[in-house]
Amino acid sequence: MANLTTQDKNKILRSLAQALLDNHQFIIKENEKDLRNAKKKNLSPAFIDRLTITRARIKTMSDSLKALVSLPDPVGEVIKQWTAPNGMRISRVRVPIGVIAIIYESRPDVTSDCIGLCLKSGNCVILRGGSEAINSNKAIYKVLSQALVKFSIPEGAVGLISTTRRQDVRALLRLNDYIDLVIPRGGEGLIREVTGHSRIPVIKHYKGICHVYVHQDADLLMAENICYNAKVQRPGTCNAMETMLVDKNIAPLFLPKMIERLKEAAVQIRGCPISRRIVKDIRAATDKDYRTEYLDLILSVKVVRDLDEAIEHINEYGSHHSDSIVTKNIEAASEFLKRVDSACVYHNASTRLTDGYQFGMGAEMGISTDRLHARGPMALEELTTYKYVIYGEGQIRI
Amino acid sequence: MANLTTQDKNKILRSLAQALLDNHQFIIKENEKDLRNAKKKNLSPAFIDRLTITRARIKTMSDSLKALVSLPDPVGEVIKQWTAPNGMRISRVRVPIGVIAIIYESRPDVTSDCIGLCLKSGNCVILRGGSEAINSNKAIYKVLSQALVKFSIPEGAVGLISTTRRQDVRALLRLNDYIDLVIPRGGEGLIREVTGHSRIPVIKHYKGICHVYVHQDADLLMAENICYNAKVQRPGTCNAMETMLVDKNIAPLFLPKMIERLKEAAVQIRGCPISRRIVKDIRAATDKDYRTEYLDLILSVKVVRDLDEAIEHINEYGSHHSDSIVTKNIEAASEFLKRVDSACVYHNASTRLTDGYQFGMGAEMGISTDRLHARGPMALEELTTYKYVIYGEGQIRI
Repeated sequence: MANLTTQDKNKILRSLAQALLDNHQFIIKENEKDLRNAKKKNLSPAFIDRLTITRARIKTMSDSLKALVSLPDPVGEVIKQWTAPNGMRISRVRVPIGVIAIIYESRPDVTSDCIGLCLKSGNCVILRGGSEAINSNKAIYKVLSQALVKFSIPEGAVGLISTTRRQDVRALLRLNDYIDLVIPRGGEGLIREVTGHSRIPVIKHYKGICHVYVHQDADLLMAENICYNAKVQRPGTCNAMETMLVDKNIAPLFLPKMIERLKEAAVQIRGCPISRRIVKDIRAATDKDYRTEYLDLILSVKVVRDLDEAIEHINEYGSHHSDSIVTKNIEAASEFLKRVDSACVYHNASTRLTDGYQFGMGAEMGISTDRLHARGPMALEELTTYKYVIYGEGQIRI
Repeated sequence: MANLTTQDKNKILRSLAQALLDNHQFIIKENEKDLRNAKKKNLSPAFIDRLTITRARIKTMSDSLKALVSLPDPVGEVIKQWTAPNGMRISRVRVPIGVIAIIYESRPDVTSDCIGLCLKSGNCVILRGGSEAINSNKAIYKVLSQALVKFSIPEGAVGLISTTRRQDVRALLRLNDYIDLVIPRGGEGLIREVTGHSRIPVIKHYKGICHVYVHQDADLLMAENICYNAKVQRPGTCNAMETMLVDKNIAPLFLPKMIERLKEAAVQIRGCPISRRIVKDIRAATDKDYRTEYLDLILSVKVVRDLDEAIEHINEYGSHHSDSIVTKNIEAASEFLKRVDSACVYHNASTRLTDGYQFGMGAEMGISTDRLHARGPMALEELTTYKYVIYGEGQIRI
């Protein structure tokens, strides 16, 4: 996989994209089995929506594979080049990580996205999706692997674990001699299972307790639009705002209108004592609320003394994912951007923008909530590592 | 620690360097306790040599701290900068990793080196050295932390674990909420202990089964000098050659003289059947030999059919650390450099050159044998991660 040419990889991606379209009936038929089981188990409508594959969604999956064709191949890129004191020419060259295992939950489109991303970045991949989507995942995998065989990609370079037993994941996580990286994407249970049992390096795609801080020098209309977008546009995502912080000087001016607008969008508010004095009929926020990723139309609100209190609150209660300050004060903004310890720190923009496509990376494996190797949106570059290539003329160590 | 200015960090480093010199008598006196215990335990002369602190070695430790002053501060460096499709200006900015735990064996100079590297890169550090060096490590730590206090560095930002019980390390390795990275530096036992029990991300500094491959188109004199250097100059290091591969066409010409020269340097040879036909009185190499890091004046030798066999042998038996090809054939060299899956791949140079100082990085935490985050020599840059700093003008997600 590491030695495939860019041209070959792009040809394969186009063929995979076509295979999905050609086999849409088979995939939809298999997906119906999962949908029937989900309904039998009384899973939530939101869950069933994520699980459902339509012809339009197959088109989107196919388009995502095609979109990878036009992205630059990260493999072989020279990241840095210099001459050592002894005259050796050293290059730091991008190479694939190797074998990546991805453990995810119910969305079957993740299956084809991950196969495409790993192929383009020269990695082998082992996929383990949620048991509720097992028939859908097997169908997508079958269609794509039949297309791969035509290009002599060795069987097993792209793999799907087709059992649903938990002990199989545990066995996988012990294979540190064979697997280079595990990426778990999901909720608390999945993340705990993987980090607790893995001997393989892990990059978590985990929760976002994201904040928007409305500073006293904010453009209040901009602040309102950003906060509304961060909470309401798609509340079930990791980059949605869970807590809104507001400077005490502007709280009486800002909060009533903001909260009214949020309530119109059916957002439930949980507030601190000061905010509850400013706006009536707000439920009290507990300490636990400030540590909760609601993934829902619920918002914690806290009035803060100043910038320092806002930064301290975010670093203490947040999940180091995405946090934003709204202000016209440049000094306050730089202080915030410097001291808030999060993967993405924003000035005057919505936390919802943390995303590979929005960042202009053209693709996304997900958003890393870890600090090492990849932080924030992970795309093709983040699926590579590097090696040092050194040219000498007989240099030895003296 | 993350917010210290470069100027402050450099002032502190100079003061730490001076403190070591001023307190050399105390450090040497405490080191003598460890030396007495080591002799009682009949530890090897090589071990005792590594453990010994002299006035000259304190000068070296002090100089290493001073050398960090002139190196660029990695924190705050803008790695990349671009404008997203929606107009946000995005920067990828280098920031410290956070809290790093370093678990190492008997060399007490590692204690001051690690404190200096973590300080300059803005990280907090927790040190756990080998029990045999406990008095020396405590003395060095005491001297340095007394100097740190004068600069109002919070107590605990630099820490040393002063107990020697194994269960304390296990407890440490479970603190994934508080520690961001563990770096174990040492042999098989230490590495297995750490990777088997850590819930914290680990970057291993582990073994090197390094190869030099003498291609049929090699300059034989250069090949001889490189192989001699890679094996003999300092055999106890991870970047020393453990296996020499020689093309069959040139083996009859190259091997006799090479092996004679190695034997003069007291190197024991273990050879494959073909090499034993070319040079008499060589002990047979077993499959296990080719997987062994001798760290000693012992060398495995194997005659190979061609480039392909050499590459396959290295990828199968090596440890993906450092491997070199000696050849005048540029095509063979590029094939080797591309397909050998090691942190450092050399053309016409000694594997002993894998080292932060030799690479011109000016410092070294050690050599990572892992694939993620940092591969090969780790210096200041590799002790950092990044965050995205994003400037908007009210952008929201549509």
